[in-house]
Amino acid sequence: MRVIFNEELKAVGDGLDQMAADVSQAVHGAGQALLNTDLDAAQAVIDGDQVIDDLEADLIDQCVRLLARQNPVATDLRVVVSSQRLAATFERMGDLSRHIAEAVRRSYPNSPLPPEAKDLFRQMQEFLDMTADRLVTMLADRDTKTAEQIIRDDSILDDLHHQTFALVLDDSWQGSKQELIDVVLLGRFMERMGDHAVSAARRVVYIVSGFDPSKEPDKAGEDNEG
Amino acid sequence: MRVIFNEELKAVGDGLDQMAADVSQAVHGAGQALLNTDLDAAQAVIDGDQVIDDLEADLIDQCVRLLARQNPVATDLRVVVSSQRLAATFERMGDLSRHIAEAVRRSYPNSPLPPEAKDLFRQMQEFLDMTADRLVTMLADRDTKTAEQIIRDDSILDDLHHQTFALVLDDSWQGSKQELIDVVLLGRFMERMGDHAVSAARRVVYIVSGFDPSKEPDKAGEDNEG
Repeated sequence: MRVIFNEELKAVGDGLDQMAADVSQAVHGAGQALLNTDLDAAQAVIDGDQVIDDLEADLIDQCVRLLARQNPVATDLRVVVSSQRLAATFERMGDLSRHIAEAVRRSYPNSPLPPEAKDLFRQMQEFLDMTADRLVTMLADRDTKTAEQIIRDDSILDDLHHQTFALVLDDSWQGSKQELIDVVLLGRFMERMGDHAVSAARRVVYIVSGFDPSKEPDKAGEDNEG
Repeated sequence: MRVIFNEELKAVGDGLDQMAADVSQAVHGAGQALLNTDLDAAQAVIDGDQVIDDLEADLIDQCVRLLARQNPVATDLRVVVSSQRLAATFERMGDLSRHIAEAVRRSYPNSPLPPEAKDLFRQMQEFLDMTADRLVTMLADRDTKTAEQIIRDDSILDDLHHQTFALVLDDSWQGSKQELIDVVLLGRFMERMGDHAVSAARRVVYIVSGFDPSKEPDKAGEDNEG
């Protein structure tokens, strides 16, 4: 019985690794689409989101079956319950990547971003690419050091996100109203991705250490951008 | 043993009812704050969000203890797993209400909305007030009829949300860039609240009927606004 349980837990872990890899690909692809007005990259992210949604549904089902049949307790229970939250977090990051890709497709062949916004969004994207890579490492190794880096560094993305408002409010802003809308919403989507990465990182700290992240401010549930 | 389990399940149900009531109050309060530039109402929503966060943490803990000690299966397991998702959904609706209240506080004594946006946001708020009331009823009675109304009517809110973009893009728009930002973000927050209500409604349909809502498009995970 115990062997089966460990096998099933391992399958859940493999599923999460797969989701993290797919989400990382979506994050990188959305950035490629946005910064290079790359329609093929955008379409790949949009199509790939259904795969991420299906992976989430499968993982949740696996976890429910595991809970029903094996009655895990202590650390194993913590892993199963946290895996459900992680799957939901990753699914949401896939959605946000898709939103960015859809904005690119809607504006094509133009970019949704005016030239003066490109540099700032490039910086945000570099941050998200790094964070997506860290998520994959963190999951594969259950690595709390990487988790702590993700949590600590999120304020960098928040600062960049604040600069999107300063950019459009400045008198030198030349963009159209549609471009202003896109800068505000795309900035919001990217900032939310950072929050979800923090939420995933806190969850991994919880799995490994047993420290309850719900007792700490949870960025995905506590973003402060109005 | 079975009696204890039912008592504990009832406590989870009571906790969800409490969360739904608090979230409903937050939704109504945020609308009062936004439409009447009511700083006291805004502050109450901001302060109340911590109570909702604490209720969520307690509910998740209760569910984990229940899973560990009672090994629920079939319908009972479905209720416990779904309760965790519902608690997370309600927590997020509390955050979105707080974001709206924070926008009101930041602009005070001015409204974040220019006069020409008031009527549209009043219509969105009336929809959300109705939806929040329906959530309370749905939870208290496990009422799938009300759940289905929530799911069906969400397109009304989506239509109103689209009108926020038409409003700011129209040549007759007189608002400042800051007001444009606020209309876009406040509209987004309100539309997301509708998505979360749909997600909660699908979850209740799942609890009552056993039909798996993850096999249907989930609005909270599939919003399409770019």
